This record gives sequence, C-alpha cells and structure tokens, in this order.
Amino acid sequence: MDTERHSTPLAMDAKHSDANASSSVATPLDRLLVSKLLDYSGKPRIEIRLWDGVKIARSDEEPVATMKLNNRAALMHLMTQRDIGFGDGYSDGQIEVEGDLCEFLCEVYNSKRHSESDLTGLARLFGLVPKKKARKNTISGSKSNIHHHYDLGNEFYSLWLDHEAMQYTCAYYPFEAMTLEQAQIAKMEHVCRKLMLKPGQSVVEAGCGWGGLARYMAKTYGVHVRSYNISHQQIVYATERARSEGFDDRVEYIEDDYRNINGTYDAFVSVGMLEHVGRRNYRELGAVINRCLAENGCALIHSIGRNVPELMNPWIEKRIFPGAYPPTIREMMDIVEPYDFSVLDIENLRLHYAQTLRHWLERFDDHEEVISQMFDDRFVRAWRLYLAGSIAAFAVGALQLFQISFARGADNSIAMNREHLYPYLVD
Amino acid sequence: MDTERHSTPLAMDAKHSDANASSSVATPLDRLLVSKLLDYSGKPRIEIRLWDGVKIARSDEEPVATMKLNNRAALMHLMTQRDIGFGDGYSDGQIEVEGDLCEFLCEVYNSKRHSESDLTGLARLFGLVPKKKARKNTISGSKSNIHHHYDLGNEFYSLWLDHEAMQYTCAYYPFEAMTLEQAQIAKMEHVCRKLMLKPGQSVVEAGCGWGGLARYMAKTYGVHVRSYNISHQQIVYATERARSEGFDDRVEYIEDDYRNINGTYDAFVSVGMLEHVGRRNYRELGAVINRCLAENGCALIHSIGRNVPELMNPWIEKRIFPGAYPPTIREMMDIVEPYDFSVLDIENLRLHYAQTLRHWLERFDDHEEVISQMFDDRFVRAWRLYLAGSIAAFAVGALQLFQISFARGADNSIAMNREHLYPYLVD
Repeated sequence: MDTERHSTPLAMDAKHSDANASSSVATPLDRLLVSKLLDYSGKPRIEIRLWDGVKIARSDEEPVATMKLNNRAALMHLMTQRDIGFGDGYSDGQIEVEGDLCEFLCEVYNSKRHSESDLTGLARLFGLVPKKKARKNTISGSKSNIHHHYDLGNEFYSLWLDHEAMQYTCAYYPFEAMTLEQAQIAKMEHVCRKLMLKPGQSVVEAGCGWGGLARYMAKTYGVHVRSYNISHQQIVYATERARSEGFDDRVEYIEDDYRNINGTYDAFVSVGMLEHVGRRNYRELGAVINRCLAENGCALIHSIGRNVPELMNPWIEKRIFPGAYPPTIREMMDIVEPYDFSVLDIENLRLHYAQTLRHWLERFDDHEEVISQMFDDRFVRAWRLYLAGSIAAFAVGALQLFQISFARGADNSIAMNREHLYPYLVD
Repeated sequence: MDTERHSTPLAMDAKHSDANASSSVATPLDRLLVSKLLDYSGKPRIEIRLWDGVKIARSDEEPVATMKLNNRAALMHLMTQRDIGFGDGYSDGQIEVEGDLCEFLCEVYNSKRHSESDLTGLARLFGLVPKKKARKNTISGSKSNIHHHYDLGNEFYSLWLDHEAMQYTCAYYPFEAMTLEQAQIAKMEHVCRKLMLKPGQSVVEAGCGWGGLARYMAKTYGVHVRSYNISHQQIVYATERARSEGFDDRVEYIEDDYRNINGTYDAFVSVGMLEHVGRRNYRELGAVINRCLAENGCALIHSIGRNVPELMNPWIEKRIFPGAYPPTIREMMDIVEPYDFSVLDIENLRLHYAQTLRHWLERFDDHEEVISQMFDDRFVRAWRLYLAGSIAAFAVGALQLFQISFARGADNSIAMNREHLYPYLVD
C-alpha cells in the first residue's frame, strides 16, 4: 500500500484556520494532555507530533506511525468530541497519520486490548469504545439509514468493488493469491454449496446489494431467486443487469423491506444485511424466516459480528453506517432459538474480510482523484479511514465475520458433513 | 434391530403382583383416562393395550407401535409419577412396547412437537417435559454423579462400545456404511484436524473417558497429552492401557476435576464432558481454558446440546445421568464470551449420534444375557430405554451434537478455511 500518499498534507477547512493561526506554539499544558493521553492508552508505539513540531512518545519501542495534530483545535476536538473526534479530525485534515494507517490503527486497537483502563485514552478518542445505546431500525428509519450509505452512487462503488458481481461483503479466499474477483466468486460458490441448491428450487434473499449473488445462483445453480432490498439505486442497477444478462425470468429484485417478504422458499439467504437489522429485530427476522422457509429448507446468514457485545465504532456508525450493529453469536441466537431452528454450521471468516478490505482500499486509493472529484477531499479521507479502520478491526480480531447455516429442527435432509464445500478449484 | 425381543414379556417385580391380580378388568374410568392421555398428547399413532386386552387408539392412522400397560398400577404410576413414570414403569416391566421401541419414542417426540398443549399428555408422562431446576455440580457432587454412571464397570461398557478406543461419545461417519470402530477413529481424527495438532505440542483434555482420544493424539500426532477425569475406574483402565501400548511417556491420566487443571498447553480438548459440567459452571470452565491455553492455542468442545433451552429428560437425569444438562449454543457462549475467545467453527453432528447409538443398541442387545447376569433385567430394560430414547431424541432433532472450536481473539495463526478437515479416507 502506498503509505506516503496517506500522509500528504491536505488543505484544512477554513473554519479551522483561526485556531491554527493562534496556536503556533504548544504550551506545557498541551504537551501534558498529549502525554497523559498516551499513558491512559497503554503507551502504544505511537508518536504524536504537535503543530509546532514537538514530538511526544511514551513507549520505549520504535513508533509504528506518527499522528500529527495540525493545530490546537485538533487536540481540543480530540479531547472534547471523544467518540468521534479522531474520525472527524482525520476527515477534516486536522489530524494526519504518517506511516501505514492500518498499522497505526492496529496498534491503537491492540493497545486498547492490553490497557487496563479500557474506557479511557486513545481507544475512546478513536471511537473504539462505543456509546451505550444503539439506534432503532424502524422500517422508515432503515430506509433512511440504507439510503445514507448505499445510495452514494453505483459509479462510486464500481470504482473499487469487484467488477464481476459488485459484492460489498466479505469475499472468500481459498487461495491466498486470489484476485478480488476470484474471491468474490468463491464466496458466492461457498454460500451456494452451504445452501445445497438444486436446479428448479426457489430462493429468497434478504438484502441483495447490486444483485450479484442472485444472478450467480440463477446462472450456476438454475434456481429462481426473489431478492429484497430497500436501496433504490441498487435495485435499479440489479434489475437492469439481470435483464441485460438474460436472467430476468429467474431473478426478481423487489424494492421492499425484508419484513415484507412473502411466499415459501427452499432457501433463505442473507449476506451482509444483518448488520443493518438491529438487535431488537432479530426475533422478527427469525419469524420472517420461519414463515417463508419450506419444511426442508436451508437458511444462511452472513454477517459481521463480535466476540464480545459492543456497539459499532461510534464514528463509523455516525458518519458511514447509521444504524449498523455487529452481533455476537449469542445475540444471533435470537433469530433461530425461538423457532426451533437447528444451527448446522457456523464459520468465522474474519481474516478473509481483512484481505477483502485490503483489496478494496488498494483500488480506492488508485481512484483517489476521481473520487475526490465526485465528492471532496473530506469524503476521501473519511472513507479511507473507514476502510483502513475496518482492515485493522478484522486483523486484530475486534470484528468477526460469521456465516451461520440452519434448518428446521426436524429436518433430516440436512448434510451429514461438510465435505461438499471442499475443495474449491479455480477455473 | 430385533424388535420382537423388546416386546418379550418380562417377569414383574413381586411388589406389583397384588396390583396386577386386583385389576383384571379395566373400568370405564381406566379407559377414559387412557383416551384423554392420547388426546392431550396430540393423538400419536400409538395404540395402548390395557391389562385386560382392551385396545385404545385415538389416531386414524395405523399405529407405529403398541404400548402395553400390564396392570392398573402401571396406569396409576404413569398418572402420578409423571416425569419418570414411563421410564420406571418400562424398567419394571409393568409397561411394555410392542413394535420398534425407537419408532415408538420418535412418534411420542413428534407428537409432542405438533401438540399445542406441550405441557400435558404422553410427552410429560414419558419425561419429555423436564422439571424446572437443574442439579448443581459441585466438585464433590460431580464426583458422585460421575461415579453413578461411569463406574458401572469397564467390562459392561466394553461389551457394546467400540473395541478400538472405548469412546462413549458421538462417532463421526464420513461414510454411511462405516463400522462403529471406523467411525470412532474418524471422530478422533476429525477432532485432531480441527485442533491442527503438530508433533511435540502439548494438549490438555478435560474428561477423557477410557483415554482413547489421548492415546490416538499421542500415537497419530506425536503430541504430549494430560487428561483429567474424575472416574476412578476409567483412569485405572486408561493408565494401564497407555502403559501396555507404550504411550505412558506421552500420555498422563490424572484423577482430578477439570477445575484443577494447571499448566499451559497448545490445545484444550473436551469431548463429552460439558454435559456434566452444569450451566452455572460454564464461565468457570472458560476461566480454566483461558488460564491454560497458550497464546496461539486452539480449543475444542464436543457436547450434546439443544436448539431450545430445556433440562435433560428427567427420567434419564434421575436414573441414568445425574447432573446432566445439554446446553444451547447461546448457553455455551458463557464459556467463550467473557474471555474474548473467538468462535472459529461450530458443527452439528446430530445425525451421527443417532447412528452411533444405533450401533451401541445393536451390540447392547447382542449381549442382553450377559448384561442381565451382570446386573438384572430391570437394568437391561432401563438401559435399553435410555439408548433407544437417545436414538429417538437425536433422530427427531430434540437433541443436537455440537463441536465448537475457538481460539484467542487476537490469534492470527488460525486456519483460513476448513479444507484440511476433508476429505476423510478410510485406511
């Protein structure tokens, strides 16, 4: 990754120029605050460089990266806007990181893990300690939350997602050297194998993104798919692409909430939607699956998750993904337990998401100029932080990726083992 | 399976002979009670034959089996000793089943599932609706509970368990036609592959039965194993066998509670012990694993479980397995969540346990005479009911078998996928 580019100074917003001008020399108090900040964070291997060039570090080891505070306002912002101060400061260009942004964020995460006072310090400032209450996801609220993120424009996403199926979810790398395209195909294949799809079967999909999985299932497995999604732009794209590829007799994209799914299907699949469902609605999601799954049907949910319950990083939840929540396995049981569903398989693909995100960030950086013209520099910085922060979160184990397969409790047509998932051979 | 043998009338205990003599003709009230019993149970396809030959059925379909009540005392026992009446009546020979005992029990289970009033009827009488509170498992209580079951004599278990490794846990059948011996070896191999054992590594085992897995790991994977068990007879057997097979330098069997495990190990494994640990102690078990697992260590727990929280069948809990409890996945999370363990893999082997139990019951029946001489007819009937009831429970999905693998949250040495578990080739 081109780390130099990340440290290129970016023009600051006009509103901060006063603060910048008036803070030419850091006071002893400024320096004390920064020292304490590092101490409370478990003394990460990070150097902080103040706006007057003074460097402060509290670890005896070589720093992995330098965090630059470009003015006193940046420090004040960091101290007062605790949950989102770092993210906003970084997006504004008041805070910069010299060195590898991912390594810097991994260091902050790990420092949080080893620090005894995990409610203080950098971790909190960087938004790694979330606020208490999750946002509700009502039907209208979900619509607005999803619009915020997924309707940024299909053109934007097509710049850095895989060209094959525009999958904005964790890929699967049976081989380390796979391209993003290959790994996204392997993910779709892995999901289909888990569902044990047979030609002529019916599948319902909750949250379909740009419709890539639905098309793959129809094309490769000869099934009929109905896919629900509340992102208007995605539905338009998916429908047009299915038509142009000649699958519109087998794939139907429906612009509606998953709670309105009707009919009965041989399989239920949801890849990357549960993060937006909200904890309070898991039982209702289970009721939907219970209502629509055939007697010997198979269900699969693919979602970002946690080992320990914790809200989404507050900066990401506020600026990038409103309403998002990554559940623990225990919490996911609210979907299956009330309906006597039998969990057949849970797989954790955490390291695959780190690799997927590395591929995304690489392509994002390759298109920095275009994206900056589509939006602005602030957007570019914010999204780079989001992608790099996500790499770090999966790489250090702060986030998980769970694929959970289940069937009805009395279904004896389930697979005896998982040998049919392997091996995966590249064409 | 020889179903005829199961219906052979068995001599009744002397204490019941009076009741038998005084109840030669069933009254209208007797018949009404039996009819209501079937109605409340969702009208299973079961015929009840009373002691005077009168047959009562409430399903329009052909009965899968006939339940014989040999005297009025049997009916009264069934009505008054609700939770354990059927099991005790069957063990005593007052209640008999004509036809396949497993099919009969499956029908009762399924009838319970479809019945609206699941707190009444046969299901309750057959002990399928458990009482409210689970037994505690203190260190001394565990010792006594385990002694009750596992110290019945190695000779008894060797009559019907596999000859290879005396595994009293669910086997693994990559091929349907496998023998019990082959399937138990395949299970041990599957566990070792999940743990990704390497020569020279150290393994700690909590609950080792007759020590078969420990010997297999030492022999096939060249690891050092310390196995904890509180069953004296099992420890004696395991130690002697390791010595005679020349593994005593690599396998150490320790007669002690899992809570007293000390040291640090590359792997933690527990196959078929969690059922005896008790819900309240899961967090403590997690603390033990957290204390003893190396930084990049891998852990595996193999346990009977449930889709929905429910106590063990009360008759089995009282007569066969004191203190046993099959947890849900949600409940098992108490072991991992407090310690930031990352769940890597959960596999459900329910149908493998039904097959394992079929093999056990077949061998048990082949040795009926010997076992009857070692104990008595009551014991034989009780154990046959336990084994057949367990087949039914796994076959209808009332019980699950979960294998859960986990590692520390920050461990990036975990397997990228599960291809190393497959294929399984028989030698």
